[in-house]
Amino acid sequence: MEKLILITNDDGYRARGIRTLVDIAREYGHVVVVAPEKSWSGKSHSVTLDQPIYVHALENFYPQDVEAYVSTGTPIDCIKFALNNILTRKPDLVLSGINHGPNYSINSYYSGTVGAAIEGAFNGIHSLALSHESFDPDANLSLAIEHTKILIEEIFSINNEAPVCLNVNFPDIEPAESKGIRLSRLTRAVWKEEFVERTHPGRPQKYYWLTGKFYNFEPEAHDTDLWAIKNNYTAVVPLTIDLTDYKTLQKLKTKGLTIKNKKQL
Amino acid sequence: MEKLILITNDDGYRARGIRTLVDIAREYGHVVVVAPEKSWSGKSHSVTLDQPIYVHALENFYPQDVEAYVSTGTPIDCIKFALNNILTRKPDLVLSGINHGPNYSINSYYSGTVGAAIEGAFNGIHSLALSHESFDPDANLSLAIEHTKILIEEIFSINNEAPVCLNVNFPDIEPAESKGIRLSRLTRAVWKEEFVERTHPGRPQKYYWLTGKFYNFEPEAHDTDLWAIKNNYTAVVPLTIDLTDYKTLQKLKTKGLTIKNKKQL
Repeated sequence: MEKLILITNDDGYRARGIRTLVDIAREYGHVVVVAPEKSWSGKSHSVTLDQPIYVHALENFYPQDVEAYVSTGTPIDCIKFALNNILTRKPDLVLSGINHGPNYSINSYYSGTVGAAIEGAFNGIHSLALSHESFDPDANLSLAIEHTKILIEEIFSINNEAPVCLNVNFPDIEPAESKGIRLSRLTRAVWKEEFVERTHPGRPQKYYWLTGKFYNFEPEAHDTDLWAIKNNYTAVVPLTIDLTDYKTLQKLKTKGLTIKNKKQL
Repeated sequence: MEKLILITNDDGYRARGIRTLVDIAREYGHVVVVAPEKSWSGKSHSVTLDQPIYVHALENFYPQDVEAYVSTGTPIDCIKFALNNILTRKPDLVLSGINHGPNYSINSYYSGTVGAAIEGAFNGIHSLALSHESFDPDANLSLAIEHTKILIEEIFSINNEAPVCLNVNFPDIEPAESKGIRLSRLTRAVWKEEFVERTHPGRPQKYYWLTGKFYNFEPEAHDTDLWAIKNNYTAVVPLTIDLTDYKTLQKLKTKGLTIKNKKQL
């Protein structure tokens, strides 16, 4: 049976990244796009609960063989709506991206691109979150195109009952400069915020822009996604859909928190 | 030195849950509240990147000894702003909640309450996400109050260099009915969505409300958070701040994806 591929992104359906991804995916099966009408960058795993969602069919934007819809909802809403109201069977693959800007390390938590892939995995579907190091809408996507093809072929060839959710980051380099694809783990890091203070032009009120510097806790480690990208590899990190910290759970059960002994209050 | 406790939530600063939490926390140290002015339920780990944030000091709402600020930003923005622009030292504890409605299982991904606690842990601070099973703003919070006190005392007494991030869910029962606090793992589950279709009152346009039913993949397991709550325990799950799936990473490295062999394209 022909493969069924569901595509969304968090930059909105017009972005060059998703149009590129649609062109790649068409070589591998029937493509259905359900994408947001606007950008949801930094909106993580958001769902729209407090207002309704509008969805309309999109004609004459993507190639004719692509079934496409635009939604006022988030990337997560798009995946949910596709699975429940549009697709007649479970897709073989969810693709999210190609995002303009990287989503390595803890940015995986903030990213709508990654959130959509995780939502696919929640539903038992292999998923790829695809992000490019450059924020430039005219960035060179040649390497991303080559490596996305390889990853789609790999995903379709693996024999894994549980869904695989891969967070993929492409470095901003020419294909000839690439050292290949590297399985990695997420870099331990934090954003050191700097809120830029400005004053409203029409009234004496201060406002703040959230900006910050990324601080890498382990620049020397060679098995991280950030190291891979900085060293001309495409970084591929399998993501968990279970946020439980089992190590700490075991530690707390055996010698940490004593709460287990305070049964009845 | 007096403990410094930072509090936020995702229901907005007026909610009864956060007011209750402030009253509890005052017994343990100096409390600073930086909370959203409106509800951000279901907005996960969202940050505000596309517009500025307004923050103002809040007077005469919480008790006088509480330092309080209200922000137009998300719960995550609130934590970031507090750490960078308000607090003069790193707090000893981040408290998020008490949320009106539960955040067990995969709801941890969708929840702004949990997102704020994870943001605290990113910054090296012990954090508690606190959620009550009932959505009723007038729910009985007596058990939540008792157990939150125990958990704050436990957190302050543990000797763990790495920050501990606990996702806490209180059952909607009387304290006398409680069987205690139970260390658990997140339940494997999914939301089976049902989009309710309606028509706009003023124009012939359909819209959709996102609703759904929670589907538990492992109702028989006794070590899950949902089992704990349904059996009159307060569920406590340590959360990871590293989304890497190490088991799958190892599997892919050794026998799964062959991408590691395709070094140079």
